[in-house]
Amino acid sequence: MLLLTRTTPVEQVKKKTDGMTLFFADVDRNAIEVRELLKLGRHAVDTNMLFIDNLKVSAADLVGEEGRGFHTLLDGLNPERILIAAEAIGIGRSVVDRAVRYAKERIVFGRPIGQNQAIAHPLADAYAKLEVAELMMMKAAWLFDHNKPCGPEANIAKLRAAEAGFEACDRAVQTLGGYGYMQEYDVERFFRECRMLKIAPVSQEMVLNTISEHVLKLPRSY
Amino acid sequence: MLLLTRTTPVEQVKKKTDGMTLFFADVDRNAIEVRELLKLGRHAVDTNMLFIDNLKVSAADLVGEEGRGFHTLLDGLNPERILIAAEAIGIGRSVVDRAVRYAKERIVFGRPIGQNQAIAHPLADAYAKLEVAELMMMKAAWLFDHNKPCGPEANIAKLRAAEAGFEACDRAVQTLGGYGYMQEYDVERFFRECRMLKIAPVSQEMVLNTISEHVLKLPRSY
Amino acid sequence: MLLLTRTTPVEQVKKKTDGMTLFFADVDRNAIEVRELLKLGRHAVDTNMLFIDNLKVSAADLVGEEGRGFHTLLDGLNPERILIAAEAIGIGRSVVDRAVRYAKERIVFGRPIGQNQAIAHPLADAYAKLEVAELMMMKAAWLFDHNKPCGPEANIAKLRAAEAGFEACDRAVQTLGGYGYMQEYDVERFFRECRMLKIAPVSQEMVLNTISEHVLKLPRSY
Amino acid sequence: MLLLTRTTPVEQVKKKTDGMTLFFADVDRNAIEVRELLKLGRHAVDTNMLFIDNLKVSAADLVGEEGRGFHTLLDGLNPERILIAAEAIGIGRSVVDRAVRYAKERIVFGRPIGQNQAIAHPLADAYAKLEVAELMMMKAAWLFDHNKPCGPEANIAKLRAAEAGFEACDRAVQTLGGYGYMQEYDVERFFRECRMLKIAPVSQEMVLNTISEHVLKLPRSY
Repeated sequence: MLLLTRTTPVEQVKKKTDGMTLFFADVDRNAIEVRELLKLGRHAVDTNMLFIDNLKVSAADLVGEEGRGFHTLLDGLNPERILIAAEAIGIGRSVVDRAVRYAKERIVFGRPIGQNQAIAHPLADAYAKLEVAELMMMKAAWLFDHNKPCGPEANIAKLRAAEAGFEACDRAVQTLGGYGYMQEYDVERFFRECRMLKIAPVSQEMVLNTISEHVLKLPRSY
Repeated sequence: MLLLTRTTPVEQVKKKTDGMTLFFADVDRNAIEVRELLKLGRHAVDTNMLFIDNLKVSAADLVGEEGRGFHTLLDGLNPERILIAAEAIGIGRSVVDRAVRYAKERIVFGRPIGQNQAIAHPLADAYAKLEVAELMMMKAAWLFDHNKPCGPEANIAKLRAAEAGFEACDRAVQTLGGYGYMQEYDVERFFRECRMLKIAPVSQEMVLNTISEHVLKLPRSY
Repeated sequence: MLLLTRTTPVEQVKKKTDGMTLFFADVDRNAIEVRELLKLGRHAVDTNMLFIDNLKVSAADLVGEEGRGFHTLLDGLNPERILIAAEAIGIGRSVVDRAVRYAKERIVFGRPIGQNQAIAHPLADAYAKLEVAELMMMKAAWLFDHNKPCGPEANIAKLRAAEAGFEACDRAVQTLGGYGYMQEYDVERFFRECRMLKIAPVSQEMVLNTISEHVLKLPRSY
Repeated sequence: MLLLTRTTPVEQVKKKTDGMTLFFADVDRNAIEVRELLKLGRHAVDTNMLFIDNLKVSAADLVGEEGRGFHTLLDGLNPERILIAAEAIGIGRSVVDRAVRYAKERIVFGRPIGQNQAIAHPLADAYAKLEVAELMMMKAAWLFDHNKPCGPEANIAKLRAAEAGFEACDRAVQTLGGYGYMQEYDVERFFRECRMLKIAPVSQEMVLNTISEHVLKLPRSY
């Protein structure tokens, strides 16, 4: 368990983000009570509420430098956004494929429903959004891999990919109609799964705050 | 079980929609195999695939006129759309209330998150869309209750209400963030529930086809 | 010329909006320099920058009560929003009509372009938005005419109507394609005209602030 | 004047697009009547209706191969789309800059308006859309420069760039409010200019048809 803890009281540090330390601790069930939270999706991993009381960690568990835990965590933010962007694009691609296949096979009023622009165009539009989001995700990943600053690129990739991915899922549900609503066709699962990427690990709104403040240099809004 | 059946072979009728008869039949499990379909939401009612073999219906089960079943069903389309619009608006209202309450109570960076325009404006916008959709729903209902034609009004009410209702749910999920994704806060349930109203009993796309053809008098697209 | 003036210095009033007086004054060109501002549209009326120096007004020019000019002006805000909503809906209706007519007559690839859902559906959608906005505009007008509070209704009517009106104009330009861009077809004029209604007399954003604060009771954001 | 002419009657060719020849002809005013068309924008170049009667062209004016004029023109479609994408992105960047500058300087209610998320976020979002569109435009240009197929990339670049560019212009008008509507601030000009890129040289709808048919392999809709 990766654990961010306050090791110097907040009154004794200059900045609130100082005095925090990161540990990679054992999950000692005697000191930790775990309550699972049920979610809309994301069932591949549990989400839990933890109550930690009197947990011992050893010096060997320390990650990075003592008192610098928050700053160590920051290092992971950009690659996490790049990763989330990649996930959203992957899900988006998969559901566009499924929706397109269905739109070719499903015959209504004597012709495949994919012949209707109201079915085809939103899928083409979602596809195009995934394609451009992927280029930014790749650019951000390249920058990160070459130890170059990639904050704006990682944020833009996450923003566009999470939006495009969920839009693709939503359009796939709409394309399959009643079948899109059924578990059997496995499109509603992606719809639930992908909705989270607009919320976590960072919301679209916080990404827009970041771009507003750090790229456009507008005054902070909060 | 309301059952629409073909009672005159399709080769012997002028229009495909003729020769069908409506029955209110008993669900005789000896003649009917029922397989439940698992869905994204809508758990208040089952959705099932039925295999009917050799089911007997009696003359007393007849609804309306023999051979006119499809036309009898048509009578129900407009009130069904009005009903769906009312459902979407009710769900939308409920989730806007929940999201607003959360936005007032949840403090981040030292102030309620509802003080952020990125939280408040989409909720205000969704609220305004629900309000205007409701007026059309009420107008359509009034027309129907007074035995006046209400096709355009019922269709527009369904279109706008289903859109506004789901938008409200989506924004409520976003407002609550991680909690919006948890089952405990009961917002994700409405999100799943309301998504169906854009698909069934008629898709937004078929409503737009209806308005295009019957209100704007554009040539039929399919 | 309707003139809002400060008649009691701001240091001597409790609220900044007190101590202002409204006059219906003559436009005395000896005391007023007028510079016209060129605009995107709205050519039926001039917009001018005024430099007023030593203009005399008489007691007979007074509108309402001395020192209460700002409050007198407030009385006009709701009917102005209702009026703007009506204007937006009227323009929207007119351009949907023109676009639909064009879509029926213009033949490409051997059929009227209005047979394409990519042309028809956005027009049907814009039409439906105009219809629901109109009901709210009518409700607000009825409330105002009966001396009842109509703030939320007038704001929602303006918000939805300005949006729907401009969307209709934008879709009409798109429907007519190259011809929509030409002055001769008179659609680009409405496009320019209607754009203003999202800005003035009050921006869509200030309307959303008003609904957020006064209807949803969220904390003020500014 | 680049002139596409039919040189073999349509009855004598296999495909309608055969039998056409391209010339780079002199504009002989004795044989050509020119009527200028007034437009919403695009005033850097005239748009004209031409009436050509008895114009002589010489063999030296021939471009490409006789009877293959239409196919020669096709070679220009992808680079034209890439060019239009670049134009839309350039305009979009310029107006985001202007709007951001204004949002920093303009003080309302005691603070720069750019501190409002309702002002800042749409600009940040438009900026992010321009950034991803640019990557696709660059990719398409690189493919074209290296003699590789670039149809999907050129179409996606045009689609996303024209959309993002106009969205940026629209948000700049909204950010500047009344000033955005005045000619002096030079934002309304870009707004008019950029609107054309969603129509010509190819409409967004035809681009979506192309992606639907040639990339997603859905059945042709028209």
